[in-house]
Amino acid sequence: MAPIEGIFTPTLVPLDERGEIQEAELRRFISWLIEKGVHGLYPNGSTGEFTRFTVEERRRIMKIVVDETRGRVPILAGAAEANVKETLAACDAYAEMGCRAVAIVSPIYYRLSPDSTYAYFAEIARRTPIDLTLYNIPLFATPIDVQTITRLALDFPRVIGIKDSSGDVAQMVRMIAAIRPRRPDFVFLTGWDCVLVPMLLAGANGGTNASSNAVPEVTRRLYELCRQGKWEEASVWQQRVLELFDAMLQVFEFPDGFRAGAETRGFNFGQPRIPQTGNQKEDRTRLANMVRCLIADFELIAKPGSCPVRSPMPVPKSDESNLDAKVLVDRIMVELGKRGVI
Amino acid sequence: MAPIEGIFTPTLVPLDERGEIQEAELRRFISWLIEKGVHGLYPNGSTGEFTRFTVEERRRIMKIVVDETRGRVPILAGAAEANVKETLAACDAYAEMGCRAVAIVSPIYYRLSPDSTYAYFAEIARRTPIDLTLYNIPLFATPIDVQTITRLALDFPRVIGIKDSSGDVAQMVRMIAAIRPRRPDFVFLTGWDCVLVPMLLAGANGGTNASSNAVPEVTRRLYELCRQGKWEEASVWQQRVLELFDAMLQVFEFPDGFRAGAETRGFNFGQPRIPQTGNQKEDRTRLANMVRCLIADFELIAKPGSCPVRSPMPVPKSDESNLDAKVLVDRIMVELGKRGVI
Amino acid sequence: MAPIEGIFTPTLVPLDERGEIQEAELRRFISWLIEKGVHGLYPNGSTGEFTRFTVEERRRIMKIVVDETRGRVPILAGAAEANVKETLAACDAYAEMGCRAVAIVSPIYYRLSPDSTYAYFAEIARRTPIDLTLYNIPLFATPIDVQTITRLALDFPRVIGIKDSSGDVAQMVRMIAAIRPRRPDFVFLTGWDCVLVPMLLAGANGGTNASSNAVPEVTRRLYELCRQGKWEEASVWQQRVLELFDAMLQVFEFPDGFRAGAETRGFNFGQPRIPQTGNQKEDRTRLANMVRCLIADFELIAKPGSCPVRSPMPVPKSDESNLDAKVLVDRIMVELGKRGVI
Amino acid sequence: MAPIEGIFTPTLVPLDERGEIQEAELRRFISWLIEKGVHGLYPNGSTGEFTRFTVEERRRIMKIVVDETRGRVPILAGAAEANVKETLAACDAYAEMGCRAVAIVSPIYYRLSPDSTYAYFAEIARRTPIDLTLYNIPLFATPIDVQTITRLALDFPRVIGIKDSSGDVAQMVRMIAAIRPRRPDFVFLTGWDCVLVPMLLAGANGGTNASSNAVPEVTRRLYELCRQGKWEEASVWQQRVLELFDAMLQVFEFPDGFRAGAETRGFNFGQPRIPQTGNQKEDRTRLANMVRCLIADFELIAKPGSCPVRSPMPVPKSDESNLDAKVLVDRIMVELGKRGVI
Repeated sequence: MAPIEGIFTPTLVPLDERGEIQEAELRRFISWLIEKGVHGLYPNGSTGEFTRFTVEERRRIMKIVVDETRGRVPILAGAAEANVKETLAACDAYAEMGCRAVAIVSPIYYRLSPDSTYAYFAEIARRTPIDLTLYNIPLFATPIDVQTITRLALDFPRVIGIKDSSGDVAQMVRMIAAIRPRRPDFVFLTGWDCVLVPMLLAGANGGTNASSNAVPEVTRRLYELCRQGKWEEASVWQQRVLELFDAMLQVFEFPDGFRAGAETRGFNFGQPRIPQTGNQKEDRTRLANMVRCLIADFELIAKPGSCPVRSPMPVPKSDESNLDAKVLVDRIMVELGKRGVI
Repeated sequence: MAPIEGIFTPTLVPLDERGEIQEAELRRFISWLIEKGVHGLYPNGSTGEFTRFTVEERRRIMKIVVDETRGRVPILAGAAEANVKETLAACDAYAEMGCRAVAIVSPIYYRLSPDSTYAYFAEIARRTPIDLTLYNIPLFATPIDVQTITRLALDFPRVIGIKDSSGDVAQMVRMIAAIRPRRPDFVFLTGWDCVLVPMLLAGANGGTNASSNAVPEVTRRLYELCRQGKWEEASVWQQRVLELFDAMLQVFEFPDGFRAGAETRGFNFGQPRIPQTGNQKEDRTRLANMVRCLIADFELIAKPGSCPVRSPMPVPKSDESNLDAKVLVDRIMVELGKRGVI
Repeated sequence: MAPIEGIFTPTLVPLDERGEIQEAELRRFISWLIEKGVHGLYPNGSTGEFTRFTVEERRRIMKIVVDETRGRVPILAGAAEANVKETLAACDAYAEMGCRAVAIVSPIYYRLSPDSTYAYFAEIARRTPIDLTLYNIPLFATPIDVQTITRLALDFPRVIGIKDSSGDVAQMVRMIAAIRPRRPDFVFLTGWDCVLVPMLLAGANGGTNASSNAVPEVTRRLYELCRQGKWEEASVWQQRVLELFDAMLQVFEFPDGFRAGAETRGFNFGQPRIPQTGNQKEDRTRLANMVRCLIADFELIAKPGSCPVRSPMPVPKSDESNLDAKVLVDRIMVELGKRGVI
Repeated sequence: MAPIEGIFTPTLVPLDERGEIQEAELRRFISWLIEKGVHGLYPNGSTGEFTRFTVEERRRIMKIVVDETRGRVPILAGAAEANVKETLAACDAYAEMGCRAVAIVSPIYYRLSPDSTYAYFAEIARRTPIDLTLYNIPLFATPIDVQTITRLALDFPRVIGIKDSSGDVAQMVRMIAAIRPRRPDFVFLTGWDCVLVPMLLAGANGGTNASSNAVPEVTRRLYELCRQGKWEEASVWQQRVLELFDAMLQVFEFPDGFRAGAETRGFNFGQPRIPQTGNQKEDRTRLANMVRCLIADFELIAKPGSCPVRSPMPVPKSDESNLDAKVLVDRIMVELGKRGVI
């Protein structure tokens, strides 16, 4: 089984002008992401607006992504449905399609107690035919606390990791300290792009980063620099990624800023599922231009005339030769874990 | 068109031991609620766990409730689906079934800006064939602010009211002050049972109160006392309702406490859709007994042996003779509204 | 001992142009408040900006207020200091001055556990020579939960009441339900003017209401209507008070809006202790005019030319003849309390 | 002027059994901290419980610390008082004593707007005779947003830095990105020990870390590893520091856990200023033992018999020989800043 590590793209879904899934554009987008170096794909996540599609649409999106990927990268399939039974049906379907694992968000809408959150994931973990990663996003769903994550990690081999979008670096350290010594294979992913470097330094295995929809070359570079131990250089890049992430996250209605980013790379995302007022449409043009300027700094696209003057930060060709250092670091970490040092 | 006022029950759904909808028990429950005096029904609300059923199940629940009700009380149909298109399909279906209006919760999971919240409801309001009430529940979904509610109320005749579950009495006063003078027919409902009396005093038209699943006689009495202007007596009852509401809301996983309450009246709700740990099942027995004691104080059920000694507060036979006072009060309120005093 | 009930004014402190206490204006303001009918005074509260004065200044303010009041109304003295020892010294001083009771805010800056909050008030309650009211203002200081308030009320005769500025009506009902049956003399005051009527209906004894700095006649009227059982009329007035309270609270830097309100009545508050930017000073002129318009609606001051057209709501001469109804209501409440009904 | 960098100890204050300042023990503690390698001292901070002392006591504490330090390390003096005038008086006093700079917390109790926060600090910055660092601790005081910090940094040379205790690494990156290119000498300190390493990687100059009261050798080592570019090794130590910090922060009433930590090193902190219940006193014995076990893992003190078995993590003798790497790193960072890359 391929390990889950590196940058997984929580993939946006191109729609047409009536808001329907645009299969050809989705295929083109998926292949482009893979060619640009993302380590995996994560369809039907929050960035993929899973709650705004029907059950049938979610299955169809996954089918297209799997088919287009042709095994080139592992797929982490967002599988949360209305209840345990429906979620298990999705797990079955995605297992059969050949996905690497499913990601299941903590119960949404209602806020559950830690005990019920445990019971919910436990019930799924007992019966799923495919590996399962927990998905903690306290902004939108029931928070999963460190103790509950630890219980699930230790009780169920099928629970193989957690995707955490809390953005709290200390929380990542706490999770890793609690689980890794007792379960070294457990995977930690961060969904908070603006602290990807500190999260990787803290020991995370990678991230599911919305920014990689727009600048997959940059997020890959950030990851590689960390794996090569070039932390200070990575930290300089982190600042630029944060700036772009903030711009795409904060002034748009999520995830529309990430669509605006990916549009600069030549994709067409069509009519979003959430209606917009006339004012919002006007604003978007202006905001999208700001995003374009920030991406142009990476010399991935041409710079519009109206951008503020800044030093560029071109993304070099990806250099895989040094990646062996990663293997070394991983071994050290595992070794330290075994000895109970971390 | 019947006005929407009084106590609407956000109806629980009896399940069987495998978690499937138990039609016969649901029918028996619906008829019992109507006989006990609720003014309306509100299926597929938060208490009805709409997010934990499939699209098809939500339609089926509504069909059963409508069929069993046979026009005896108006039905407010929870109609939120994955996106605008699906929600409009539900509006069509519930209009055809003969529901009085739909209730649509503010966008869930993601937290939207006021502009997008407006755009979302506006798009539905333009195209729905059935009256629409907004549903504000900041605990679980995007909050709708007073300005956005006001814009929607003034821009769309189809938007006929709001159900507010914020529990903030000042917020209710603000909404009524902003809207009623300019749109006197707009309906204000509260979903926060522990402040039903202050909300009615502030001018609310009624409530969608989960407690009415367990003690419909009591919530009706509370409403009648207020309509008769017996505010001080109502306030004494409010204290008891708060106590029961708190017990059913706070120590159980929502909405399981309300199921425990309704079970004391002879209904069987079966296996909940959210799994429970062994500890939780044990706790529930103890907690359910506490709820039973509180309901027994109203002399609606027999008192278990283990209850703390307290003075009872028997619910008298409902006295409709004084209800004419309500008409008077309403006229005064409308008159004051016309003159711009309120 | 005079009971603590009715509207207590959390008194603003007039300063001169250098930000120093302006004794003559403070005296004039205090006497005006008393003449306009406030039931008591509450110097060194949050509205009185107690944290922005020195220890010596706080003593001086109290001395002036006590001296000017000459026993005409009871004084509730804000007595919180840096620690228990200093707070007890303030209690001694205010007892000697003849204050009716002290109000002590829950520990500020740090957020303490319920146990430490209990221990803090317990230590003071054991040693204070003067009655003590707790002061709960979760916006600014450690919240005090219902259980801790109940423990303190039952353990210490010196703890005679609570001032609650949470604005949560349900919380008020919970406190009264927990304490009044076991300690009928315990006093409940609300500091959230926009829900004064619901709080009084819930059983509160009165309020410490910042609005009474600007419109003492109006807050008194609100109180009297409630005491006369004219709840629906009170509710109409409540809407106007809410509107004014919101205006004074939300757009100014607290408590500057209340100063702007009191300035319309002919008082001069001078240079505030918190510096303002040039923009803020310009804004204030515009905002103060809006407050002036709202107060003019009560026909207490002349209407500026630029106000929006609205129906006035003149404050009638205070009618004390009906106040006997209050006695009746109080007796009923006490009786109900004795029988354990409430 | 000495630059402000490295680990500053927000010093605890030893009290005697009556809660009075214990001068001899405070002197002994200060000299011990300096000998163990802290880079500076920060008296009258949150850990030093500045709000629980009187004005006179705060001055006395500072005098003792300055006198005992004898210029061995720079002193950052907590100088917040009741208002601008009093705060400026403290600035004068601490300037005269020879402190390196003052730290002034954002306005407490009330929550101010960004404009008023700016005006407050601006007024002080214009008139202070001593350098000033802003202190952002959103948990306890008005939050200071990035824009306001930037305005203050660019408008006032006297504002030389910020101490941020938000714990949000992304926030640190945002502040540094906004300010350092335009004001390279501006100092960034973090008060959130559990993410010290990520904060330093992000470019922070050091920290004011409560943990250094208990384990100054460990926090110094963490800092040195980072300055030597040994990020992965630092990250392993960070995990242990987080564990100890969490233990001292979360289960005690702040800052009592840090007192418990420092007590293991042979100091006596006496009677705290916040009273404790009997239960709390019993708990403390058990909790203090847990802290003792965690500190014993660093082999700084003997291990009690009752600790869980764990691998130790002994602190090596401080190795200053590699510190030159720091100079190099700093130069690179400054250079990158000049070129506008970061």
